[in-house]
Amino acid sequence: MTGPVNLASKLALFSEHWSPKIVAGFNGNDIMVVKVKGEFNWHSHPDTDDFFLVLKGRLTIKLRDGDVVLGPGEMYVVPKGVEHCPVAEEETHLLLIEPAGTPNTGDPATAATKVHV
Amino acid sequence: MTGPVNLASKLALFSEHWSPKIVAGFNGNDIMVVKVKGEFNWHSHPDTDDFFLVLKGRLTIKLRDGDVVLGPGEMYVVPKGVEHCPVAEEETHLLLIEPAGTPNTGDPATAATKVHV
Repeated sequence: MTGPVNLASKLALFSEHWSPKIVAGFNGNDIMVVKVKGEFNWHSHPDTDDFFLVLKGRLTIKLRDGDVVLGPGEMYVVPKGVEHCPVAEEETHLLLIEPAGTPNTGDPATAATKVHV
Repeated sequence: MTGPVNLASKLALFSEHWSPKIVAGFNGNDIMVVKVKGEFNWHSHPDTDDFFLVLKGRLTIKLRDGDVVLGPGEMYVVPKGVEHCPVAEEETHLLLIEPAGTPNTGDPATAATKVHV
């Protein structure tokens, strides 16, 4: 039996931005925490929706038809294939869910390597 | 384009316990919020893992080989097929993820009807 996963404790284990860390698995999906700051790149995931829950801070998800702004306790699912660009002015902590192996940039060539913490 | 989902606002829309409400979809999974209090039933899900994240309160997930106790910001995934019984002494708010159509009791005959909020 594994124990509970404390998300803040997991986030305290690393400092780099835009590098998701796997904290649990769910039916072949990675449950991840990530610290973000600044602007990511415009990308889309052709095969999967993209789940964002803000744990701390503030995230703007730019979409081609407008922005979604999320504070703590707010979530958004970017539908499969929809172009988006996450931006955070201050350091922001997120919970992410993606099928295992999904490249965070939408492109395996530029994706961060996801490790377990 | 849909907007952000504020989990606390969604939870403020209902008061009943053990009746998950769908707030978003993710690749055929329901993202749900639920208020729980008291003891649920022992059950398992033969076809899916079961994701719990505590948003407020305190949840004990009884397992046959021990208990997992979760406070706010803590999560646990009960593996597919593993018997469990959630218990909350005080009213507790959870984020749940399950494949659409999963009966919350493990048995369609006794399951709550999941509606969107």
